[in-house]
Amino acid sequence: MPIKTYRATADLKENVKVETQARQHKVMVDEPASLGGEDTAENPVELLLSSLGACQAIIARMSAKQFGIDIESLKVELEGDIDSDGFMSNGAIRPGFSDIRYKFHIRTDAPEAEVEKFIQFVEANCPVGDTLQNPVNLVSNGVVIERDETAAAPK
Amino acid sequence: MPIKTYRATADLKENVKVETQARQHKVMVDEPASLGGEDTAENPVELLLSSLGACQAIIARMSAKQFGIDIESLKVELEGDIDSDGFMSNGAIRPGFSDIRYKFHIRTDAPEAEVEKFIQFVEANCPVGDTLQNPVNLVSNGVVIERDETAAAPK
Repeated sequence: MPIKTYRATADLKENVKVETQARQHKVMVDEPASLGGEDTAENPVELLLSSLGACQAIIARMSAKQFGIDIESLKVELEGDIDSDGFMSNGAIRPGFSDIRYKFHIRTDAPEAEVEKFIQFVEANCPVGDTLQNPVNLVSNGVVIERDETAAAPK
Repeated sequence: MPIKTYRATADLKENVKVETQARQHKVMVDEPASLGGEDTAENPVELLLSSLGACQAIIARMSAKQFGIDIESLKVELEGDIDSDGFMSNGAIRPGFSDIRYKFHIRTDAPEAEVEKFIQFVEANCPVGDTLQNPVNLVSNGVVIERDETAAAPK
């Protein structure tokens, strides 16, 4: 099993802004005003939908040739439902997405049956899709409490 | 049940670049050279980790007051494992994350026991964490095949 480990960090900035980083790449996250933010960026659950759509689009690009599909353009529309009573319910109602739906728009001259087969392959092989559809073993590696050294130092 | 529906789109650009958008906010996605990209942005699975870390950081900000926690700084480190044999295995090996681990770094003068309780609350109430830990009903809304009108027009 050739396991590959991916990494990211999320650094809380002012208010509810977060600077995320993976390798040298940064992505800012914020919340709309209705959720206490300044609406300068996608919020976390929108970023999750974006991650899924991007994954599907990339798998489509990577596998188009083996299906003989010439992609003129491809776009994925995604939407997902969250019960807002779940937020802060401490687990009584699930706080996350119950349902996520997606629709592919593809411009191609390939026959319809071939396109359907191709998209089914994309769906089955998308890492983010699998991650969402099936449970992930999500584990805390602990909490590191950092203390203000000045305050702790003897006077 | 006050269901809120979130939306995003993912538009395939040249090679494996994807422009994602939620409301007015755009996030680019790419792959490193090892996966056929030009490494101009986070890839989809890194973006997924970023989404989780951002969500945890924001829930921490939103709930700190009710736990009496003064956050001087907070950062989440995340990592996740993918079996690279799963990619293109068409479901034989799961293509997504099997395990995701995260570690909180928090600078605060709050007592350790209070911080632990606070972080446990954040974990339990994070929408993205719940979305990853528990299965989501992921459904295709269909495939729209767009045809080149010029080619289809009678001559």
